[in-house]
Formats: sequence, C-alpha cells, structure tokens
Amino acid sequence: MHLTARLIDSRGETGRQIDANKAASTLRKSTDIEAASPTEGSSYMLTAGRPVGYFNTIDWVREKSKDRDRHREITNKSKESTVALLHSVSDAFSGWLLMLLVGLMAGALAGGIDIAAHWLTDLKEGLCLVGFWFNHEHCCWTSNETTFQERDRCPQWQSWAELITGTSEGAFAYIVNYLMYIVWALLFALLAVALVRAFAPYACGSGIPEIKTILSGFIIRGYLGKWTLIIKTITLVLAVSSGLSLGKEGPLVHVACCCANILCHLFTKYRKNEAKRREVLSAAAAVGVSVAFGAPIGGVLFSLEEVSYYFPLKTLWRSFFAALVAAFTLHSINPFGNSRLVLFYVEFHAPWHLVELVPFILLGIFGGLWGALFIRANIAWCRRRKSTRLGHYPVMEVLVVTALTAVLAYPNSYTRMSGAELIAELFNDCSLLDSSQLCGYKPPTNTSKTGVGNSLADRPAGEGLYTALWQLALALVFKMMITVITFGMKVPSGLFIPSMAVGAIAGRLLGVGMEQLAYYNHDSFIFKGWCSPGADCITPGLYAMVGAASCLGGVTRMTVSLVVIMFELTGGLEYIVPLMAATMTSKWVADALGREGIYEAHIRLNGYPFLEPKEEFGHSSLTVDVMRPRRSDPALAVLTQEGMTVGEALVESTRYSGFPVVVSQESQRLVGFVLRRDLLISIDNARKRQEGVVSASQVVFTEHAPAQADDGPPPLRLRGIVDLSPFTVTDHTPMDITVDIFRKLGLRQCLVTHNGRLLGIITKKDILKHMAQIANRDPDSILFN
Amino acid sequence: MHLTARLIDSRGETGRQIDANKAASTLRKSTDIEAASPTEGSSYMLTAGRPVGYFNTIDWVREKSKDRDRHREITNKSKESTVALLHSVSDAFSGWLLMLLVGLMAGALAGGIDIAAHWLTDLKEGLCLVGFWFNHEHCCWTSNETTFQERDRCPQWQSWAELITGTSEGAFAYIVNYLMYIVWALLFALLAVALVRAFAPYACGSGIPEIKTILSGFIIRGYLGKWTLIIKTITLVLAVSSGLSLGKEGPLVHVACCCANILCHLFTKYRKNEAKRREVLSAAAAVGVSVAFGAPIGGVLFSLEEVSYYFPLKTLWRSFFAALVAAFTLHSINPFGNSRLVLFYVEFHAPWHLVELVPFILLGIFGGLWGALFIRANIAWCRRRKSTRLGHYPVMEVLVVTALTAVLAYPNSYTRMSGAELIAELFNDCSLLDSSQLCGYKPPTNTSKTGVGNSLADRPAGEGLYTALWQLALALVFKMMITVITFGMKVPSGLFIPSMAVGAIAGRLLGVGMEQLAYYNHDSFIFKGWCSPGADCITPGLYAMVGAASCLGGVTRMTVSLVVIMFELTGGLEYIVPLMAATMTSKWVADALGREGIYEAHIRLNGYPFLEPKEEFGHSSLTVDVMRPRRSDPALAVLTQEGMTVGEALVESTRYSGFPVVVSQESQRLVGFVLRRDLLISIDNARKRQEGVVSASQVVFTEHAPAQADDGPPPLRLRGIVDLSPFTVTDHTPMDITVDIFRKLGLRQCLVTHNGRLLGIITKKDILKHMAQIANRDPDSILFN
Repeated sequence: MHLTARLIDSRGETGRQIDANKAASTLRKSTDIEAASPTEGSSYMLTAGRPVGYFNTIDWVREKSKDRDRHREITNKSKESTVALLHSVSDAFSGWLLMLLVGLMAGALAGGIDIAAHWLTDLKEGLCLVGFWFNHEHCCWTSNETTFQERDRCPQWQSWAELITGTSEGAFAYIVNYLMYIVWALLFALLAVALVRAFAPYACGSGIPEIKTILSGFIIRGYLGKWTLIIKTITLVLAVSSGLSLGKEGPLVHVACCCANILCHLFTKYRKNEAKRREVLSAAAAVGVSVAFGAPIGGVLFSLEEVSYYFPLKTLWRSFFAALVAAFTLHSINPFGNSRLVLFYVEFHAPWHLVELVPFILLGIFGGLWGALFIRANIAWCRRRKSTRLGHYPVMEVLVVTALTAVLAYPNSYTRMSGAELIAELFNDCSLLDSSQLCGYKPPTNTSKTGVGNSLADRPAGEGLYTALWQLALALVFKMMITVITFGMKVPSGLFIPSMAVGAIAGRLLGVGMEQLAYYNHDSFIFKGWCSPGADCITPGLYAMVGAASCLGGVTRMTVSLVVIMFELTGGLEYIVPLMAATMTSKWVADALGREGIYEAHIRLNGYPFLEPKEEFGHSSLTVDVMRPRRSDPALAVLTQEGMTVGEALVESTRYSGFPVVVSQESQRLVGFVLRRDLLISIDNARKRQEGVVSASQVVFTEHAPAQADDGPPPLRLRGIVDLSPFTVTDHTPMDITVDIFRKLGLRQCLVTHNGRLLGIITKKDILKHMAQIANRDPDSILFN
Repeated sequence: MHLTARLIDSRGETGRQIDANKAASTLRKSTDIEAASPTEGSSYMLTAGRPVGYFNTIDWVREKSKDRDRHREITNKSKESTVALLHSVSDAFSGWLLMLLVGLMAGALAGGIDIAAHWLTDLKEGLCLVGFWFNHEHCCWTSNETTFQERDRCPQWQSWAELITGTSEGAFAYIVNYLMYIVWALLFALLAVALVRAFAPYACGSGIPEIKTILSGFIIRGYLGKWTLIIKTITLVLAVSSGLSLGKEGPLVHVACCCANILCHLFTKYRKNEAKRREVLSAAAAVGVSVAFGAPIGGVLFSLEEVSYYFPLKTLWRSFFAALVAAFTLHSINPFGNSRLVLFYVEFHAPWHLVELVPFILLGIFGGLWGALFIRANIAWCRRRKSTRLGHYPVMEVLVVTALTAVLAYPNSYTRMSGAELIAELFNDCSLLDSSQLCGYKPPTNTSKTGVGNSLADRPAGEGLYTALWQLALALVFKMMITVITFGMKVPSGLFIPSMAVGAIAGRLLGVGMEQLAYYNHDSFIFKGWCSPGADCITPGLYAMVGAASCLGGVTRMTVSLVVIMFELTGGLEYIVPLMAATMTSKWVADALGREGIYEAHIRLNGYPFLEPKEEFGHSSLTVDVMRPRRSDPALAVLTQEGMTVGEALVESTRYSGFPVVVSQESQRLVGFVLRRDLLISIDNARKRQEGVVSASQVVFTEHAPAQADDGPPPLRLRGIVDLSPFTVTDHTPMDITVDIFRKLGLRQCLVTHNGRLLGIITKKDILKHMAQIANRDPDSILFN
C-alpha cells in the first residue's frame, strides 16, 4: 500500500492529472456543496477512501464491452448446470424486473407527493374539523351538507379566520387569513431550504441539468443517492406547498432517477456497470415525466428528446414499460380523484378554423420570445447569485422570495391558487352553467337564432369577465417576474408548471380577445363564412392550451415530446396541428434569440462537463491542435512493451490515469493502453505473491517473454492488463470527426498517431476545453476531475 | 480513358472486387428485376456509364464531413458580399424549405390516392347516375331524397344489377353483382401488376424493407426514382380498390420517400450528399405515416423506432415539421369528409377497469402469436415463390389471389367491405339507435333499474349479433389465411390495415364475449363491485382497438409509435394503459418466438445488406478473424508514400476500390487511404495537363517531394487526394466493438493495424458476411456490390 500513498504524495506538472482535492475544492467553491453523501459507486475511483469521482468520465465502449463479456460468460455457463441456467434466465429478465420496480417505486412516491402537497397547500388556507389530515376537497366529500354547486364550501372546512376569530366575513378575517397564508408559506419554505442545506445539497433545483450531465457519461457522486431521494421528496412537497412559483414536475424526474439508481444496487449487472446503469436512468427520466403529468408516452419522448444522450431502441422499449408501470401505479393510487390519468382534461372538441392559425402562431412567437427572455434573465440572475454576496445567504433568499410571493399572490385569486389549478381553470371552456369569473359573459341575447340551445356559443363579455381579465393580466406580469428569481434557488423547483401558467394566461387573454372580436365583427372578411352569430367559433380554452405549449417550448425547446405531453395532459387530440404549429414557431423564435434551452444554459452556468449532442462542431481545427502534449510540452509519457523495470513502469513522476504501451521508445509504435490503476494493483499483487519481484524487475507487456538474463530478478509479465484495442485517430483528423467519434461512441480518451507512430492523446476534457475556448469562454470554468 | 477501360477488363482474384456485372446479375436473379431506371445519383460510381451502384455502401462520416466543409465555406464567404450572404441564408433554410415541399407533395398525393381509391372501390359495386366520377357517398350527398337513416341508399346510386337487369332484388341480381365485383377486382389487379412489371419493378411490395436498407446507408439505384413514384401511386390505388387484403399505409411511406428523393434534386446540399439525403428520407418516412393515418406524431415515432437508422435530434425536428405540413395539407384536402384527421374516431370514453387488463393481455398474447406465425408463414411462402416455378408467373399469381379473394370475400359483408371500413365498424360502440348487425342486441329489459336511460348499457345478445359473430369468425379465418399469401406479391401492398383488421375482429369477438359474460354473471366474484346490471361496463369497441394494436405490434414489433398511432387514429386517449399493456405483451410473445419483425425478415429474405441496429453482436470473435486478407490470402495491396511509379500505383492487377498508403513496404506504417477513383482521375488529369508524366513517373504522397533524380520524368505529387484520417482498429479489437463502431459511425471500411503496422482492412460487407456465417446462413446470399 505504500506505493499508492507515495503516488498520491507525488505531484506531476502537466495537464492530465487526477487531482482529487483540487477538483473537489473547485466544485465546492462554485456550487456551494458542503457535503456529498458517498452513495453512488464509481468504477473509476483510483485511490480508496478519497473523494475522487466527481465528473469522472465513463467509457461507454469499454463498459458495454465488459457487459457483453459478462453476458457471454453467463450464456456459456448456462449449458453446464440448472443453477447456471436459472442464473442466465434471471440475468436476462433482471432488466425488465428492475424497470418494474422503478415504475412501482416512482409511481408510489409520486402519488404520495401529490397527496401530501395537496393537503399542505390547503393547510395554508384552513383546517378540516373532522380530521386535520383531510384536505379541503376530501373534507367536504365526507360532508352531507354540501350541494354540488357549492361543493368547496362545507361547515367541516374552516378557514383560519373562522377558527381564530369565529367569522369568515370582513376585513379583519381577510387579514387573518392573509397573515396565516404568509406564515405557513414561510414555514414551509424555511423547512424546505433548511432540510436541503442540512442533509442533501444536491436536492435543490430541478435536477434535469445534472441528470443530463450524468447521462452524457459523467459521474456526480451522491447526486442520485438515498439521502438526495429522501430529502428531495420531502422538500419538494414543502416547496410546492409554500406557494412559490415552481412546479413539481422537473424534480420528479430527479426523484425517479434516484429510485432507479438505488434499485440498481440490487442487480449486479447494473450495480457494476456505469453504461448499463445509464440505460436505466434514461428510462427513469421517462418514468419521472410519466408520473408527473400522467403522460407515459410523453415521458418516453421527453427522455429521448430532452434528457438522454444515448438512447438505443432497447432503452426505448424499457422506458415504455417502466412508464407504463408507473402510470398504472399512479392510476391505482388515483391522486387526482377522477380515475383519469389526464391532469387537465378538456371537455371541448370544437373544431378549429384555418384562420385561427394566425393567433396560434402569434402565441408561438410570444412563447419563443418569453422563453429566450426568461433564460437570459434567469441566467443573469443566477450568475449574480454566484458572483455576489447574495449567494452566501440562500436561506434568507428563499424566505424573502417566499414572503414576496405570498404577499403579492394572495390578493389575486389567480395567483393564490396553485399553478396546476390555474392552468386547469384557464384550459376550461365556459358552459352556460359555469360559475367561474372567467365565464362572466352576458347572457345570450335572443337576436341570435342559431345560437339557441348552443350553450357554448360566443357571447359578449360581461363585468365579471373584464375583472377576470384584469386580474389575469396582473397575474401574467407577476408570474413572469417571480419565476425568473425563483428558479435556481436552493429548494427543489421545476419549471414546467410556471412556464405553462404564463403561456396559458397569455393564451386565454388572446383567446377572449379573439372571441370578442369575432362576436362584434362576424361580418368582417376574416370571420365571414365560418363564424356566424351565435356559433361557437372561438374556444378561449384552446388558446390557453396553445399558449401553454408555446411557453414551455420556448423555455425547454422541446417539440415532439411537448406536443405529446400536451395532448396526453388535456386529451385534446383534435388540436395536434395548432399545437405543432405553435411549438415549432416557438422553437424557431427562441432558437433565433439564443441557441440554448434552459437546461443547457444551466449546465453551462454551472460548468458541468457536457458534450452537447445537438450542436454541430463547426470549427475547422485538426486533432493535432487539441491533443496533448502540446508542442511546447514534454513528450507523452509512455511505457515500452519490454525493457522497463517495475520502478520505471510506475512512472512515479506523473499522475496520469493511464499510459500507452509502445513497442519501443524509438519506433513509438502503439501496442495498447494500460490503466494506472490496473498497473498498480498488478504490481502490488505480484510483490505479494511472486517472489523476487523488486523495483529492478523488468515489466514485460509482450506475448512471449524475452530471453531472460540469469542474474536479474524474474520479469513481471503484464500483458493481461493491457487494453490491446485502444481507439486511435490520426493527427490530421478534422476535429469535427473526432468530436463525432467521442459523442457517438462515448469515448473517454483516444490516442493520436501520425504515420503509425504514437503522437499524443486526446480526452473528452480536452475536447470540452477546446470547445469552450472556441466559444470564447473560460476553459477552466468546466468542472472536471 | 484507355486506363479505365483496361482496369475494367482486367480481373482480380481476391474477395474485395467491384464486379458490377456480377452484382447486377445476382440482383436480377434473386429479385426478378429486369430494368432499373437510373434516377438516383451515386457518389460512388466508379466507372461512368455502367450500372454499378446497387447496394454500394455510403460512408456517413466522410459525407457528413464533406457537408460541414461545404457549410464552413459558405459561412466564411458570406461575409464577403451580399450575394454570398443571401446564398448562406438560403442554404441554411433549404432544409426547412425542402421539408415544406415534401410535406405538401406527399400530403397532396395521399389525398388524391384516398379519393381515387374510394371511388374505384365503390365502382366495383355500382355507378352514380349523376356522374360516374362520384363515389357512393358523394353521389347520395347530392341527392335530396335520402334520409339520415338511409343515407347510403339513394336512387342516384345504382348497383350493377340494377343497371343491367333493372332490379336489385333476387338471386339473379345478387349473382350479377357478385360477378361484376369479381370482374372489376380482376381488372384492377391485372392493371396494377401489369403496370408494375412494365414500368417500375421496384413499385411492388410495401417498400419499407428497402427503405430501411437505404436509410442504413446503402444505395439502391432507381428505388426512389420518378418512375417508381408515378407507377406506385397509380398501382397503389388499383391494388387497394381490387379488394385484396392489403393496405395503402406502408406503400405511402415509399411514395413519400420517392417525393423526398426527387425534391432533393432541387437543392445542391441534398443532391450531392448521400448522408444529408438520408436525413430527408427519414423525415419523409414520418410524412408517409403522417398522411397514411393522419397521425403526424405517430409518423415521426414510426420513422424513429421502425425505419430510420440514424436519427439525430435535428432530423426529429425536421420530421416533426414535415409531418405537420403533410397533416395540414391532408386536413385541407379533407378526404375523409369529417374535418378530422382522425381515421377511426371513437365516440366512447367509458373508463376501463383493472380486471379488464386480463383480457387485454390475452389479446396481446394473441397478437404476438399471430404476428410470429404470420411472419413465419409469409416468409415460407415468399421463399417458396422464389425457389419454385411459382415465381415465374407473378401476373397469374396476382390474378389467382385476387379472384380467390373476391370470390370468398363477397358473400360475407365483413370481408366485402374495405379493411378500413371494417376496422371503423369494429371500433364503433353500439348505441341503442345503431342499426348495424354488430349491434343486434335484445332491447333492454325493464328489470334493470339503473340502466334506464343509459343507451350504452350492457345488453344480452340477440339474433343479429349472433349472426354477426359467426360472420366475423369466418372473416377472421379468411383474413388470416389470405394476408399470408397476399403480402409479397408483385403489387404495392401494405400490412398495417390487414394486421389491424385481424386484431380488431379477434378483439371484438372477445369483447362481445366478455360483455355477455358480464351481463349474465354480474354477481360473480370477477364482476362484483364494478359491473352492476344495466351499467356499461364492457365496451367491445375498446377490445377491438386493443386487439388491432396487438396484432400490428406482433407483426411489426413497434411499441411506442404504435400506441401513439393508435390513439391518434382513434382519439381514445383514456386507453393508453390498456394499449401499452397489450402492445408490450404482444412484443414479448412475438420476440420469444422469433426475433425479427416482418420488415427485418423480408430484408433477410431478399438478402439486402442491412446492419441490424437493434441486435447486439454476441459472438466473441476478434477483428483479426474477420478482416481481409485472411491468413491464406496474399498480402494487402498497399501503396507506398514514395518510390512507386504511376504504372505501379494504378495497381492494375487488383480491382479494389481503395488503397491504404504506407510509409514503406517494410515498416507498413499507415499514412492514409486513397480511393481508386480519385487516383485514376488525378493521374488522368496529370497526363493531360502536366507534361512528361508517364508510367515511369514517380507517385509521391508525402508532404515534401523527395530529392529528385534529374534524369527521370517529373514526380506526380498526389498528397491532396489522400485521406489522412482513415479509421483504424487494432487486430485484437473484439468484433462487438468493431461492429458498434461501424453501426454508430456508419463507416464503409476500417483499416486494421497490429502494433502500429498495417495488417488488413475490414468493410461493412465483411461484417455482414461474418454475421451471416455466425447465424448459419449463406454469406453469399447478401447482395452487395
């Protein structure tokens, strides 16, 4: 063991060093992480007991190859005995079993979170006298004294004002309710941020940027551990209930991934193989969205389009299965109480008209603009938080924002209700019986003949509707502002619901505007022919739906998955074309203003090492310009296949994690690649087991040992640990091809040759730094081990 | 030019030969193709004017790299002048513009095909007196004498019996109608097969196996040409109208791909680049399904899951856009006349119960079994056609099958109607007013109290229903048999509708069975608690839907895309979980009985060179075992970077399409790779332009010309044509990794080295042959240039 210790004490001077302390301290400085729970195993831990492994790269090809070897071994053995056969069968099914477990666990957790968040949200407003554990709705279900019209008013449910002052009328009661609302909100927020800071710093945020980074082939230790899971689940409920402008959908993806990672430990196949584990995590991301929205297919596509890096068809099928199980579990728990998976079911099926594509595309433009603007503002704010003293007081920040939100939100009924409720209300179309303020139209006049009996016909707006529109406009401004400063705080926070809420408000406003325009101008050339008086030609709820899709699209840049999520959410399958048109417009507009979606922007902000699979590498550099050693650097540290002694082979002066093996120093003809770790272990073992191995012993990597000098110590034959198939590219390979190879194969490093001679090495890190340099960013801002 | 000619006359002896004549003749022998219209350009045509290019491999990496170079050049130039800037902008938008055109063209064609097929199908039964160009439905629309109940009977529409004999009653009239039906069917079929054989042999079949092969990076010349497009469009209408058990959905994918390929010629970017063109074709496949089913999202996913090989996110977005445009175009044409894109809109939204998952999973098992069985039977039949004299009479075969279909189908109303009509009827739920035979229930009795007013309540089956069930059972057997021999004939034929029809019949039968079981046993432990008397607890239409999805899944092995297509088709978004469960079961069962879906099976049957991206390569061979030259073969033909003369460099004794360039014969250190074609062109040019270049001139591939002997002819410097970044793997690389590299990067060939010395070469063909060998198939059955 003293060798290992010596290696750690010694220090090299060139770039390719594994400096755990430095990496960890960088990480600490920049993302304010005090403690990381060491739950996630890493196959790249070079030294025992040290916290290396942050942002280590995994080597997909090797990991996959390792798994295939393992699989072959099991298959071959299976012919020998029944036990081995059973093992082989169980191994083949372990993937599906794991998916089943992930689906069940995530579905159950999501159901629990839904129920708990519902209860805590209602607790801010009042208490159920029958039992404090009932939420408002359940409380009134048990009551017999409530009618269908007034189903949300029952004597069992009492607002805080009623409980404290005995009355629910008057200014004083209002103030009491207002204060209690703020107190509860602050309490929940405080609890959430305190728990996050105390136990699991990784539990904050939406988690999607980090999961993208992990899936792209890096290791963030502890990010998907059990503490993160427990704390994120609890604090998510608290954060949502506190009334902050955030959603639970993004964090549920993180929760599902934590479940998957923990369950991976049950199966050797997945515990020991980082590549296989990432397949499971991709599926878990699908499960997350599946349970968040009750949209299993949308979840699979979300994982494919937005989160995953490597998504083969096998993973598609597994994701599909896991999402199915999760949706089914959620369906059985039935947290929305309507025996539907659909969150915002829309009742209307009115057809849309071609002319309406114009406002839909306008909504798409609005969504794109808002998305681009939001990303810029949010990133600027987060950068400010990182660089100024603001970042030192995360608890205070959360409390101030919560207080601000609560104070401003309570007076306006559209901001007081939760984001999901708001969206459901905005998506809803007005029937004649609807008592909502949004449906405050004037009663239909008798002049319209065809409209008699058509309860959904366009009607002129009344007083109630005008008030509602004003409130909605205020809510829009408020939501737009507060979401910018909320996303990125040290509590779990998702973006889906706030973005959709902004879009839904804008859409509803435009929809009502169009409706009134059509009502008063049904003879103008625009509406003539398809919008006769008394007909239901404009459906404001549809505009809200399209607006919600546009804004979510602008922020996340999703397309296909977004449309599928939208119609899984609403059941509005007739509206594929409007949704697609708005989403596409939104993506175009937003992309024109800034290439990155919110998750990529946060990845870059935090300096995660992420090799973007979407962008093409446009620069014309060659591999020789990017590889190490640079021209001024000392030559590459290599091992020769024979003639080196154990002492030399340890290469104590450098701390590279691996060494190329060449035929001889003169020819520099490449034989293979050997990992430092394997070298150390092998030498260590040899010293223990094989007598006479000393530092002067020759290390031999050839197939046949050379003729041995009689007087020397016995040679140490290490061909077994050499990877005889290292990836190589030539120095003249254009960088775009090299980047493509790294992306598609998921390499960790690649050797560079010139005319058959070894010249250098290029790693993912070199590529990321090079890309940062091209983009005029600081290459050292990228966290990397 | 005499050099080229000489090269073609000379013959090598080892494996890696480009023998155009042989390849073409093999193709002719095995797939019965006499003429191929030379419309598709090939960048790999080695000799002008010769029909090489069948199953040539394209090199994705080089093509992509070429495109990036082109893009960079345009971008750099764009700063110089306004014209160049405009060129740059138009280049950036050409992809989207092309997508727009593809969507418009495919949408318009699909609309036309729908209308024409509808008309011709009705022509088999009768004629519209108002105008022969009206189909049955349109004919009666124009009539005022028809009531809503009898909207398909109007005096303007006369059956052939009425026209000929003057009456529509009696046995004689029936026989006249019967005979006219058969005559028309035979006429359509004859016309279809004759057109296919005369003008475009590639127009037959569904086209999806070939498109998969093309998208995986091979070239099939003429397969996507304008003749194929024209003939396929016409014959598709005829084949569908002839009443054969086939659908138009698969062939529409081929039609859309032809449109895309032809439109590619408008844009240099896509005309000249095979890789970019394949991106467009992937999107076109999505467009095909989008217009076939009116399912844009399902189309995108179908392209992703089933057809495409390389599907980056950019292609996803473009496919999405193209599918949107196509769906929109179709929506505007409105061929179904219901202003809905949804083909089989279901009206029911009744919830399903957990217990029902058991029959749904049973349907999944049935679908899987049927899928596996169908594939085996169909492949056996197609193999028989290829190997026996049956294959020599394709016209006769089509006529016999058509006659058989017509004779057997006419008496049974469920087989007489078209596949799409049958599916629509089976998906439909029975209301009290429904006059269909399938809804021949006994009127509700008064004993059930809760059922009063519930028009969808479960009722006991009546006479009509029992008759319908018998007919359905016969139709099921008939459809199952006839589809096996229909698919693969020399007419355009799709599988989607026949597979779905089989499943829908089976599902409906099970559904009615369950309904009756529930009606008579509502007190048993299974139905107790959720199925009270008079309630609508079982929806037979839903069972038909689930059955259709199962059977289609069993045949094609689709999962996610299938579910999305199903709910885009039906609007039944509440039934995601049943559909997913049945589809997953079906895939599992079918996969257990045979790994290949119908398209992969046909690819293998026809010997197309297709590197399956789904299957893992499980064998433990090393690259050295697969590469050429084999141990017994002569050494690899290489060029040295200097010292060879023009005469030697032509390597006249071999016909390899490319040569590695090495430093020297002794060292075998690899410098690069040069294509034979480039070499020939360069030498030819040099002879024309540069004086004194003769066969004795030295060919130099180095950067700096060596010191030149004064007396000799001037050296020919050819470094410019050397690819300095050839891909290499070592001889010890496990084949699974090599296969992975070929798959993911889309390579054409890869050089093999050992300790830095060049050892051999491995091509996609070698890999395909090796894989065939492992699977105990004849490696020479694979068509390959």
